[in-house]
Amino acid sequence: MKGCIVAGLVFAVMQTANSNCSAAPAQTGGASTASAVFVNTLMPEPAHLNAGTGAFAWTGTLTVGIPHFRDQRLDDAVARTLERMERKTGVMRQRVIGTDGSAGLVVDVDGAGDAVQSIDEDETYALTVTTSGVKLHAATVVGAMRGLTTLEQLVQTSGGGFFLPAVEIQDSPRFRWRGLMIDVGRHFEPVDVIKRNLDAMAAVKLNVFHWHLTEDQGFRIESKLYPKLAGEGSDGLYYTQEQAREIVAYARARGIRVVPEFDMPGHTRSWFVGHPELASGPGPYTIRRQFGVDDFAMDPTREETYAFIDAFIGEMAGIFPDAYLHLGGDETPGTQWKGNPRIVAFMREHNMKNTEALQTYFSQRVLELVKKHGKHMVGWDEILNPDLPTDAVIQSWRGAKSLVEAAKRGYQGILSQPYYLDGMRSAEDHYLADPIPAGSDLTDDQKRHVLGGEVCMWGEHLNALSIDSRIWPRTAAVAERFWSPESLRDVDDMYRRLEVESLRIESLGLTHLTHEDAALRELAGTEEIDSLRVFASVLQPVPFGERYRYQHTDQLTPLDNVVDAVRPDPSSRHRMAVLVRELLASPSNHEARVELDRAFKSWAAAAPVVETQMQGSPLLAIARPRVQQMVQFAQVGEEALKYLGGAKAPAGWKKAKLAQIEAARQHQALVRFTVLEPLEQMVKAVRE
Amino acid sequence: MKGCIVAGLVFAVMQTANSNCSAAPAQTGGASTASAVFVNTLMPEPAHLNAGTGAFAWTGTLTVGIPHFRDQRLDDAVARTLERMERKTGVMRQRVIGTDGSAGLVVDVDGAGDAVQSIDEDETYALTVTTSGVKLHAATVVGAMRGLTTLEQLVQTSGGGFFLPAVEIQDSPRFRWRGLMIDVGRHFEPVDVIKRNLDAMAAVKLNVFHWHLTEDQGFRIESKLYPKLAGEGSDGLYYTQEQAREIVAYARARGIRVVPEFDMPGHTRSWFVGHPELASGPGPYTIRRQFGVDDFAMDPTREETYAFIDAFIGEMAGIFPDAYLHLGGDETPGTQWKGNPRIVAFMREHNMKNTEALQTYFSQRVLELVKKHGKHMVGWDEILNPDLPTDAVIQSWRGAKSLVEAAKRGYQGILSQPYYLDGMRSAEDHYLADPIPAGSDLTDDQKRHVLGGEVCMWGEHLNALSIDSRIWPRTAAVAERFWSPESLRDVDDMYRRLEVESLRIESLGLTHLTHEDAALRELAGTEEIDSLRVFASVLQPVPFGERYRYQHTDQLTPLDNVVDAVRPDPSSRHRMAVLVRELLASPSNHEARVELDRAFKSWAAAAPVVETQMQGSPLLAIARPRVQQMVQFAQVGEEALKYLGGAKAPAGWKKAKLAQIEAARQHQALVRFTVLEPLEQMVKAVRE
Repeated sequence: MKGCIVAGLVFAVMQTANSNCSAAPAQTGGASTASAVFVNTLMPEPAHLNAGTGAFAWTGTLTVGIPHFRDQRLDDAVARTLERMERKTGVMRQRVIGTDGSAGLVVDVDGAGDAVQSIDEDETYALTVTTSGVKLHAATVVGAMRGLTTLEQLVQTSGGGFFLPAVEIQDSPRFRWRGLMIDVGRHFEPVDVIKRNLDAMAAVKLNVFHWHLTEDQGFRIESKLYPKLAGEGSDGLYYTQEQAREIVAYARARGIRVVPEFDMPGHTRSWFVGHPELASGPGPYTIRRQFGVDDFAMDPTREETYAFIDAFIGEMAGIFPDAYLHLGGDETPGTQWKGNPRIVAFMREHNMKNTEALQTYFSQRVLELVKKHGKHMVGWDEILNPDLPTDAVIQSWRGAKSLVEAAKRGYQGILSQPYYLDGMRSAEDHYLADPIPAGSDLTDDQKRHVLGGEVCMWGEHLNALSIDSRIWPRTAAVAERFWSPESLRDVDDMYRRLEVESLRIESLGLTHLTHEDAALRELAGTEEIDSLRVFASVLQPVPFGERYRYQHTDQLTPLDNVVDAVRPDPSSRHRMAVLVRELLASPSNHEARVELDRAFKSWAAAAPVVETQMQGSPLLAIARPRVQQMVQFAQVGEEALKYLGGAKAPAGWKKAKLAQIEAARQHQALVRFTVLEPLEQMVKAVRE
Repeated sequence: MKGCIVAGLVFAVMQTANSNCSAAPAQTGGASTASAVFVNTLMPEPAHLNAGTGAFAWTGTLTVGIPHFRDQRLDDAVARTLERMERKTGVMRQRVIGTDGSAGLVVDVDGAGDAVQSIDEDETYALTVTTSGVKLHAATVVGAMRGLTTLEQLVQTSGGGFFLPAVEIQDSPRFRWRGLMIDVGRHFEPVDVIKRNLDAMAAVKLNVFHWHLTEDQGFRIESKLYPKLAGEGSDGLYYTQEQAREIVAYARARGIRVVPEFDMPGHTRSWFVGHPELASGPGPYTIRRQFGVDDFAMDPTREETYAFIDAFIGEMAGIFPDAYLHLGGDETPGTQWKGNPRIVAFMREHNMKNTEALQTYFSQRVLELVKKHGKHMVGWDEILNPDLPTDAVIQSWRGAKSLVEAAKRGYQGILSQPYYLDGMRSAEDHYLADPIPAGSDLTDDQKRHVLGGEVCMWGEHLNALSIDSRIWPRTAAVAERFWSPESLRDVDDMYRRLEVESLRIESLGLTHLTHEDAALRELAGTEEIDSLRVFASVLQPVPFGERYRYQHTDQLTPLDNVVDAVRPDPSSRHRMAVLVRELLASPSNHEARVELDRAFKSWAAAAPVVETQMQGSPLLAIARPRVQQMVQFAQVGEEALKYLGGAKAPAGWKKAKLAQIEAARQHQALVRFTVLEPLEQMVKAVRE
C-alpha cells in the first residue's frame, strides 16, 4: 500500500500508481516489516506527507548519527527522543550518538538557529523513513525538534515489534506564533507543573509559552530591585529569578519562547500591597481575593510610575530574553482615576476626553519603555486605538473579526478569544475556529500580520491538581489548527487522533487523565469509584462565568467539588454523538445500538451506587439532582432505542422527554450533561 | 456512645459507665451533632485515646487561637492544616489566626523546640475535642504538628456536615527514629517527588528522611568544592545546594529531620568519574550502569583520601544541619584492595588480616572526621565490628536479631531489613515486624538503644512515575509500627484504616493510586482499561532480586513493563484473603460468596479483552501467560464455590487444581498472583 496525505485527507493509492501528492514520491525498498501499513496518528498533521511502502524496524542495533551541525541543545533533544522511544518500545540501544551520515537515524541540521529563538525561527523539517533508515533534515535545531516529535508519533507496532512506516514528510507551520498562556497570578502553579506543560506543548509543536505572571491576586516573580512586589504581593507563592531562568532554559531546550506578561495599569492590586505609591489612590492595599475587574489601577499621571516600570522592565529583560514583552492593558475601568481629583485635573490639562484616552497615554508611555529595553510590546485588545503605533502587537480576546480589522490597519495580532479553555467548550469548537476565518478579505501581506494564536488558561478555578485536565487534550487540537493546513477540518478524524495524542501526553507525566479518578476518590472517600466514573462520563464543568455567578468563588474557595473533578469535553461526549449520528442514519445499525444500549444501562446501574455514596459525602451530594436526571436519561435512551427500532411511541412521549432534556439544561450543581444533544436527536427522530 | 482505644482495641462502653482507659475520662457536653459517633480511622493510632460524647461541628465560624508560644513554623503548620480541612470539607473560614485562648481551635505550645530538630525532640501532644471546642497542647512545635495531623484524621461527616467527634488523646511515639530512606543514586528523583513524599511522611508522623544521595550509578548532590563529583558523576541529574537546602527547610517545616548518606568506601564509582585519585586503582572510571556490588572502592591507605572526605563532609555539614551523617559502609568486597600491591603492603604493614580489617580502619578514620564536624556517624551493618566505638549508629539490614545483639553491646541501632519495600512484601508482613521482636531479653536501657526503624526504598527499579506506588500506602503501616504501642497487631483493622489513609495521602498529591492506570493506558495505547484493571488487581511485581535475575536490568533499562504498572500488595489481595477466610469459616456466608463469585466472573470476562489488547502491544503481551492462568483461576474459583456449597468434587479435581496453582507459583512475566493462597485454601477445603 502506498498513500499520501495532503491537508489531512488520506488517499490510498495503488502501489503502481503515481502519487498525486505535491511532495516527492515515497522511497521504496525491501520492507523490513512486510505487513507494515502507515496508520496516521500524527498531531498536528504535517503539511505534506507521502506514505511509502514497507517500514524501518526499530531495534536495539539502531545507530544514530549527527553528521553536520551539532550542539548541546540538539544532542539533548535527540537523547530525549531516543529515551522516549526506549520507554515506548522497551527496545534498548547503545546510547551513543555518532557523526555517521549513513547511520540508521541521521539528524542532519544546518545550524543552531537564533541565539534567542525568534518569531521567524525556521521550523521547517523534512523527515524520510525508508526500509533502510530514517533521515531528518532541518535548517535549525528547532526545526529538528519538530521533526523528532513527528518521528516519535510515527512509531507503530504490528504486535511483534515496533517500526516506523515508510513516509516522506515535508513540514512547516502555518502560523509563527502558536502559544499557550497560563495564568499563575490568580492561583500559583509550581515549577514542575509548568515544566510538564512545556513538555506537552513541545509534543504538539506549540512554540510560545505566555506566562501571565502578575494579577490582582498575586505577583509571582521575584524582583531583586523591588523585593516587596513578590514579597508582599504573593502569599509567598512566587518564582525565584533562578526558577524563572530555569523555566526559560527548559522552554528553549524544547523550542519554546517564553513571553512574560506583567499586566498593567489594571489588574495590579498585588503590586500595590508593597508599593501603594504606584496606585491611583492612597491605599493601603491587600492582595485581592475576589475575582473580576478591580477598581484600582496604576497612576498614569506620575512620572515616578514610569520610572518604576522602566527599572522593573529592565530587570525582567535580564531574565526573559524573548524579543516580546506582554504588558496586558486589559480591563481598566477607570474608576479610581475618575475618583482622584489630581488625575482628573491631569486629564483635563491634557485634553483627554475620557479614561480610555488616559489609558492610551499610558500605553504609549510604556511602549516607549519596552522599546528602550529592546523589546516589542504585546497587549490585549484594549490597547488598540487610533493613536497606538503599529509596532505594538495586539492579543485579541474580542475575536477573529477584530483581529482581521487590526491587520488591515497594519497591526500584528494574535488570536485568543476562541481558545479560552475556561469556557469549557469542546475540542471540536476550538478546532474549527481559525485565526483567519474563511472569507476574510485579507491580502497575503495582511494575513502575515495575523501572527497566530494562543490558547488561554485563566486561573480562577485552577490548582496544581486540576490544571492539566483543563489544558489537555483540548489544546492539542488547537495546536493542530495553528500548525497544519487550513483545509484540515475533519472533526471525527481529529478526535480519533486526539485520543492517541492524549495518551502520548500522559506518558510525558501529565495528569489530565489521572486527575478525575483522584478527585472522585477524594470526594467519595473510597477506592470504589466505578459507578462514579460512569456518572462523571456524562458530565462536564459549567463555563467559568456560570460557575462564578452561582458559586461566587474567590481565590480562597476550595476547588474540591464535582465540577473540579470532571473533565471538559470527555471523550465519551463525542463518542455518543457519533453513535447517535450512526444510529439515526441507519436505525438498524447493530453495533451503534448495542453500544448505546450498554451506555444507557450503565447509567441506570451506576445511579443508585452514586446516590448511596453521596449520603456519606456532602460535597458529592451537591450533584444529586444530576444523578436523578441521569436515571431519567437512561430511560429516555432505552425507550428511544426501542421506538427507533420500529414501534411508535405513545402520544405525548416525545413532548415529555424533550421537557426532561430541556429541564436538564437549567443550571444545576455546577456541572452540565454532555449527552443532551444526541438524546434530543434520538427523541426527535422517534415517531409518535 | 462512649468508648476508648488503648493500643488499637476499641471498647464500646455504656454512656454511664466509667472509662476503663488509662487516659483521663472524656469531656461531655451538649452534642452539636447528636448522631456523632467516633469512627476510628487514625493512622498511626495514638498511645491513648478516650472517645467522648458528641462532637464539635466544623463550620465557617471557627475561630483559631495560638495563645502562648508562636513562630512562623507553627503558624505555617496550622495554616496548612486549616487549608486541608477547607479542601476536605468545602467549609471556608476567616483565615485569621488570633491569640484567643478560648477560640474554637486553640493551639497551645510551650516553645519552639530544638533549633535543629534532634533525635530527642519532644513529639508528645494532647488533643481534646469537646462539643465546645478543640484544644491542642504540646511542648514543642513538632509536637503540635503531630497533633494537627491527628486532628485532620479525626474529621468525619454524617452526610450533612463535618465534625470532630469528642475525644481525648494523649500521644507520644514509641520510637524516636522513624524514617524513610529514598535511594536517588540509582535513579534520580526530582525535587517535587521528594517534597510530596515528605508531605506523606508527615501525614503518618515519620520524622527522618534518609537521603541516599550517592551511589555507583550517580552522585546526586552539588559540591562547590569538588564540582566534578556531580558534574561528571550524575548525567546532569543532581540536586543543587540550593535545592538541597530547600528540601531540608521543607522537611523541617514538617517536623522531619534530613539525614544525608554518602556511601563509602564502596558504592563510590560515580565519585571516581571526576576523581579517579580517590579509587584503589588507576581508572579511568565511568558511571556504573549495572546494579549489584561493584569491585571498586576508595583507597583507605592514602591520606589524601581522608583529606578529601574531610573537606567534603565539612561542605555538606553546611547544608545538612542534622546531628547525624550516614556514611554507608556496606558491600565493599575488597576486590580492588586485594588487587593493589601498595594496598596489600599497607595491610601487611598494619597487621590487617583481611579486607574487613582494612574497612574497619577506614570506618574509624571517617568516624573521626564526622566527629570533627560535630556529627554522629551512621553506617550499615558492615561497619559493626569489635573495634568500632559505640558512638557510631548501626543501621541494620541483617535484621532485628543482629540489632538486638548490637544493643546489648552498647550500640544504638535502626532496623531496616524487614522494611525493604523492593521485596514487594505485603503491608501486613512489614507491619508485624517489630524493631524489638517479642521475647527479646533486652533491659529497658538496652531497648532505648534501638532508636527505631527505617523503611528503605532502593532505586534500581524506580522512576518518578512509579516511586509513590512502591512507597505508599505500605509505608503508612510501618509508620504505625514505629509510632504506636507494641501491642497493636490487628491486621484486618490495620488494612481498614490503611485504605482511608491511602486516600488521605493521595489528596496531598501523591500518585500511588493514579500510577497504575496511567501505566496501563500507556501499555495498552487506549483509555479503555477496565479489563486491564481487573487483570492488574490479581497481580503484583516480583521482588527485586527475582526481577533482577530474570530481566538483567541496569540503570538504563526502560521501566515500562507490566511489572512497573502493577502495585505491590493491592488492596484486592487482603480483601480476597478475608472473603475466603469468611467463606471457609461459614460456607453459607452469602455476602462472601456473592463477592467472590463476582470477582471470579470478572476475571473470566476480562481475559479475552486483555488478550486482544496484547495483540497490539508487545510490552503488554509479555504477561500473556498470566492472563491464561487468570482464566484457569476464574474456573478454579467458580468450581470451588460450587463444591463448597455442598456437592462433592469429582475424583482428581483437587490434585489437578492444586497443580495449576502450584504451576502459577513459577516465575513468569515478572509478575506474581496475589490470590494463590486463598484459592489454594478454597481448593483444599473442598471435599472430594
